Amino acid sequence: MTQPKCVVLFSGGIDSSTLLFDLRDKGYDCYPLTITYGQRHRREIYAAIDVCEVIGGSILSNWKYLELDALREFLPSSLTGKGDIPVGHYQDITMRSTVVPNRNMILLAIAGGYAQGINAKYVAYAPHMGDHPVYPDCRPAFIAAVEQAIKIGTGWEDEGVELLTPYAALTKADIIVKGQRLNVPYSRTWSCYKGDDIHCGVCGTCNERKEAFRLAGVIDPTQYLK
Amino acid sequence: MTQPKCVVLFSGGIDSSTLLFDLRDKGYDCYPLTITYGQRHRREIYAAIDVCEVIGGSILSNWKYLELDALREFLPSSLTGKGDIPVGHYQDITMRSTVVPNRNMILLAIAGGYAQGINAKYVAYAPHMGDHPVYPDCRPAFIAAVEQAIKIGTGWEDEGVELLTPYAALTKADIIVKGQRLNVPYSRTWSCYKGDDIHCGVCGTCNERKEAFRLAGVIDPTQYLK
Repeated sequence: MTQPKCVVLFSGGIDSSTLLFDLRDKGYDCYPLTITYGQRHRREIYAAIDVCEVIGGSILSNWKYLELDALREFLPSSLTGKGDIPVGHYQDITMRSTVVPNRNMILLAIAGGYAQGINAKYVAYAPHMGDHPVYPDCRPAFIAAVEQAIKIGTGWEDEGVELLTPYAALTKADIIVKGQRLNVPYSRTWSCYKGDDIHCGVCGTCNERKEAFRLAGVIDPTQYLK
Repeated sequence: MTQPKCVVLFSGGIDSSTLLFDLRDKGYDCYPLTITYGQRHRREIYAAIDVCEVIGGSILSNWKYLELDALREFLPSSLTGKGDIPVGHYQDITMRSTVVPNRNMILLAIAGGYAQGINAKYVAYAPHMGDHPVYPDCRPAFIAAVEQAIKIGTGWEDEGVELLTPYAALTKADIIVKGQRLNVPYSRTWSCYKGDDIHCGVCGTCNERKEAFRLAGVIDPTQYLK
């Protein structure tokens, strides 16, 4: 049986790493795609390569990196160098400075075009419930609209690329529970917005990471500065 | 009265040049954005600058160019160097090799993010009726879906960026009639897919250009090789 081809938006973080293991486990032929759009640091890419190396095989040879750092000037955000990275809870209103304008639509549109070019039927990405309060481009209404746009924009009649977002109704803790069963190497993944040698432990996404492992009842293998 | 800010996807061709003159005429504060995604040639950018120079003022100073040629490898098309540029009528089925996978969604997603960052309420682009048979990402159903995705992805409640596509139900000839009244300098615009010194006169878009001037009853100022 032919395995369905799937382009997976893959940042090297907990959510997309779990998604990659999960889809591979379900029999998809995965094409992980890592895109930079002017982030402050390169830690996520190193993590992405690391995770692919752990999986090996076709996942590693299919992995692609696309450098689009020229987008930085067009997408102001604390993640792309405008102002400081905020400290606090992931869902605090102050975290909105970490919104990269329309980022997910940009990444999904590119993934859709890439999928069409290699005749992949699917594009997958991993937004989850905890993203909704801060990131408009993770909400169910956004997912529904972007799914339609990709499907129509990439093909005639019913041939367009389909979007998979299996974690949209899960929490990050649910994702970690799932990933532990799949042996996702979480120590290799990267979350911290700051990008120093080890996770800072105090930015929004570090706090979210700590909390998710605690809620999942899974030992957190991450080294934090604080 | 404050003029509404509008990011205009601007390729330097007939349609988007007319749109730029048209929106300026209607009182919009326009931010033309020209993006390369690995096209074979640079002629469109020279045309874009030329047209902005004719307009001058804030349009010229607001014009931005974004080089994303790294996309070439991910978006196979005869326009990005895969195979030869087909010769024939614009709406022939053979012209489908000129489809750049999901291009418009990619460009619109970026324009949406850029608009959000500069607090522009609108993004405009210029697909028209004649594009529909060959380019899935110009059809009304695509426009409706992408409009929704941009609106939801770029803001909370009713704050998201809105999409303007005023030519979706017009022909290219209609656009030229409109543009002539607005004194759009069509001799400075560029259509040809090949990108030599002058328009080739035989590729799909050259044929479409010739035909549109003829149907509009407007003298075609273009120099063609054939």
